[in-house]
Amino acid sequence: MKYGIALFPSKKLQDLVNSYRKRYDPHYALIPPHLTLKNSFEASDSEIKDIAKQLDAISDQANPFPLKITKVSSFYPVNNVIYLKVEPNEQLSNLHESLHSGFFSQESEYSFVPHITIGQRLSDDEHSDVLGQLRMHKVKHEEEIDRFHLLYQLENGMWTVYETFLLGKES
Amino acid sequence: MKYGIALFPSKKLQDLVNSYRKRYDPHYALIPPHLTLKNSFEASDSEIKDIAKQLDAISDQANPFPLKITKVSSFYPVNNVIYLKVEPNEQLSNLHESLHSGFFSQESEYSFVPHITIGQRLSDDEHSDVLGQLRMHKVKHEEEIDRFHLLYQLENGMWTVYETFLLGKES
Repeated sequence: MKYGIALFPSKKLQDLVNSYRKRYDPHYALIPPHLTLKNSFEASDSEIKDIAKQLDAISDQANPFPLKITKVSSFYPVNNVIYLKVEPNEQLSNLHESLHSGFFSQESEYSFVPHITIGQRLSDDEHSDVLGQLRMHKVKHEEEIDRFHLLYQLENGMWTVYETFLLGKES
Repeated sequence: MKYGIALFPSKKLQDLVNSYRKRYDPHYALIPPHLTLKNSFEASDSEIKDIAKQLDAISDQANPFPLKITKVSSFYPVNNVIYLKVEPNEQLSNLHESLHSGFFSQESEYSFVPHITIGQRLSDDEHSDVLGQLRMHKVKHEEEIDRFHLLYQLENGMWTVYETFLLGKES
């Protein structure tokens, strides 16, 4: 089964992002607006129980952190993905690192550019039009993130949450 | 903000249900296949923190339970909803009761018919056609449920998971 790890920003930010995704992101109906912490990976039913235990331990050691957005950016020319750039911070980097080392070290990793996708699979012309428009809007947003989620993908491409992990919880 | 409480069955059952929902349920893209434990209710950001604490206590006291499905049924003539009928059992009834009494007693309640919707908002003709077809398929399924989720609704109607609660967890 295919799993992934992500965090959802506040409803306010999700609503804003969806107002663009509706037009520019073919994944709009598959998952709410999110920041991917770990790309999709395969795990069996028994493996996922161990993974959930590890994630519980990781979340206990982590702390809530600020999610700060200051601009719209793009992965062009690597691909035509337009996103809200999330300012890196130590807690977020540490959390990402925890999800790609130790128990999880077998997983391959790209350099981590924290982002919330607002458009993808755009043609070159669409991409430059949309990016040009979006860059004229001021995007300033800050909120606190206190949880992340382990999700699995259904056959139709939609993602269902398997479990939520609260950062720094006392348990 | 609008919240609701639901459980998601296994991926296997969600995939099966989605193969019908894709054609027969206009809510197909809004939420994965689910069993509603508590209909949508309003709560503020501060209220939801108390509610999450209560749900944590309720889930600690509950135990995993079997989800058993034996047939396709319908709420007709009340409404044209076609669903997988979930066999009632004591643990499920107790969980539902916990979510509608004590702390939650202010919420109104309908009689609880546990079900997983596979089609809704069908015309009378569509409803009788689809129900007739589906009733010819044998539906026998049993699995264990060990968690439920608190969700909130975005402006576009989609639901995002706020938190997962594990049944009978030791914490």
